Amino acid sequence: MTAPTETLASLGESGVLGRIFPRLPAGQATLLGPGDDAAILAAADGRVVVTTDTMIHGPDFRLAWSTPHDLGWKATASNLADVAAMGAQPTGLLVAVTAPAGTPVTVLEGIADGFRDACAELAPGCGVVGGDLSVSPTLTLAVTAFGDLGGADAVLRSGARPGDVVAISGALGDAARGLRLLFAEGVDADGEPDADRAAALRARHPREIEAQLAPRPPIADGPAARRAGATAMLDVSDGLLLDAARIAAASGVRIDLATAAVGDEVDLAGGEAHALLAAFPPAASPPAGFRVIGAVHTGEGVTVDGAPAEGRGGWDPYDDWDGHAG
Amino acid sequence: MTAPTETLASLGESGVLGRIFPRLPAGQATLLGPGDDAAILAAADGRVVVTTDTMIHGPDFRLAWSTPHDLGWKATASNLADVAAMGAQPTGLLVAVTAPAGTPVTVLEGIADGFRDACAELAPGCGVVGGDLSVSPTLTLAVTAFGDLGGADAVLRSGARPGDVVAISGALGDAARGLRLLFAEGVDADGEPDADRAAALRARHPREIEAQLAPRPPIADGPAARRAGATAMLDVSDGLLLDAARIAAASGVRIDLATAAVGDEVDLAGGEAHALLAAFPPAASPPAGFRVIGAVHTGEGVTVDGAPAEGRGGWDPYDDWDGHAG
Repeated sequence: MTAPTETLASLGESGVLGRIFPRLPAGQATLLGPGDDAAILAAADGRVVVTTDTMIHGPDFRLAWSTPHDLGWKATASNLADVAAMGAQPTGLLVAVTAPAGTPVTVLEGIADGFRDACAELAPGCGVVGGDLSVSPTLTLAVTAFGDLGGADAVLRSGARPGDVVAISGALGDAARGLRLLFAEGVDADGEPDADRAAALRARHPREIEAQLAPRPPIADGPAARRAGATAMLDVSDGLLLDAARIAAASGVRIDLATAAVGDEVDLAGGEAHALLAAFPPAASPPAGFRVIGAVHTGEGVTVDGAPAEGRGGWDPYDDWDGHAG
Repeated sequence: MTAPTETLASLGESGVLGRIFPRLPAGQATLLGPGDDAAILAAADGRVVVTTDTMIHGPDFRLAWSTPHDLGWKATASNLADVAAMGAQPTGLLVAVTAPAGTPVTVLEGIADGFRDACAELAPGCGVVGGDLSVSPTLTLAVTAFGDLGGADAVLRSGARPGDVVAISGALGDAARGLRLLFAEGVDADGEPDADRAAALRARHPREIEAQLAPRPPIADGPAARRAGATAMLDVSDGLLLDAARIAAASGVRIDLATAAVGDEVDLAGGEAHALLAAFPPAASPPAGFRVIGAVHTGEGVTVDGAPAEGRGGWDPYDDWDGHAG
């Protein structure tokens, strides 16, 4: 049994690491795991795909809404999605967690379990190769993810060509709807995040809330798209319009999205979908997880049903966060 | 000219990144730099050494004492030292910076310049392969460093054998003295960090203060020690006694340090030296940067001149930090 008074401060960094390391998966590519000055990861083809993304209490999540498991899960999922969006297979994570001294060790264990379970479900064989634990006034998860391209070229944002089809794998809109629900109904009378209301909301709208708090990006579809000949790909994290515009700009093309294919009810500017948006040559067959939602043309920017897309294309209610609540 | 009112909030993440990326060195191993979902780094021998270390305002540094350039420099230096301590050549960094919305862009530029200059001086050819910039209540630098072993085995902590000599490269004691000076004389009448006093102190004691705020670990001596046959090595970051005890424990040996060789005036428990402590077989010649300070024996733990070492072996005045000042 864990006494509720055990904290990062009372156990110390090494004490907490002793509790956490056994919970973390080693990973098939881990040649040397935690415990020395650095770790060693296999990079079979002589290259390694690397990315880092940080989640910060306040701007990126609220403890009243997310469980510790959600936090470890989402930090893992968002980094794995960036690796997958290159067409690479995730091989390992470095996890740097900073937390207030009074953080219960059970919270840190929950975060570790989230790292573990997200690896196991989203990228089997990917493990935690090392990390860092520090005291900070602000709970922060800085995860670095590694990936293997299997000798192939990476799929960049810049390779889309006129005539390609545009396809997406993963749900659009659920995560953004979940976040809207949380800001509308997961708060108390003063508008502050409320754990009980958020839990009730999650029970009523599990798909949307979990898409926001513990997303399941289609990691395996990244390498599958590369094998199928994808010419460009990215992780849709800031809204379909904005992210499609990034491919269009990097590739020097226009992307036209078809409302009928995307779905009328989808907010094209809704963020954090963690879907994979890719372009495929006309003769290619996108992998099973993908559905065609548009096409690549000469020109620039993004159009919807042939007409210019309106609005900024991205949306972030956390911008209004006041720096203390939740 | 830079207007002083330009901040992370006013320029936005992409605006700031546009200012920072051009300042960062690409690095010889960078195959794909910032701008896509992930970066790609060469890992010539099919493995990559990886490590991450986080610096947090408050527990790890004070803005009244460190310049932005110092922060980028130290975050780089401490991570490079962990790579070097494996016997690896640093090849790249991922830099994740979180900063309050009101942070002037000039501060972020200064941090970037610190990353650049530390790479150039300490590990020429090592560059910044990617990163992340986010808004947070707490200024934090989470740096991940990568290294190449050139086909050789890594030098772990566990390889020291009775009969080996123990040698160190880098200054001992200066950084700890610098920190003591800052806490004693770099503060105002209330004991709060004071920028003017710290600047005056730095002018009077540049060696000690700069060893603390902008350390120069002997990075090239890490791979050199590996080539010379080092059996064990680590980066001395928590005090010579504690870090020698780590090699002793991992290797299942006793390490005896000779006061006459270490120097009488050196605080054996002083932290953050970022020196490299290594064991070499008796027949090996430690590289030029190393000086012998002890020997490996059967047994366990650390002795000094043959007698048990006293005290905890580590020291951290930041433990007393109150979470708001400086």
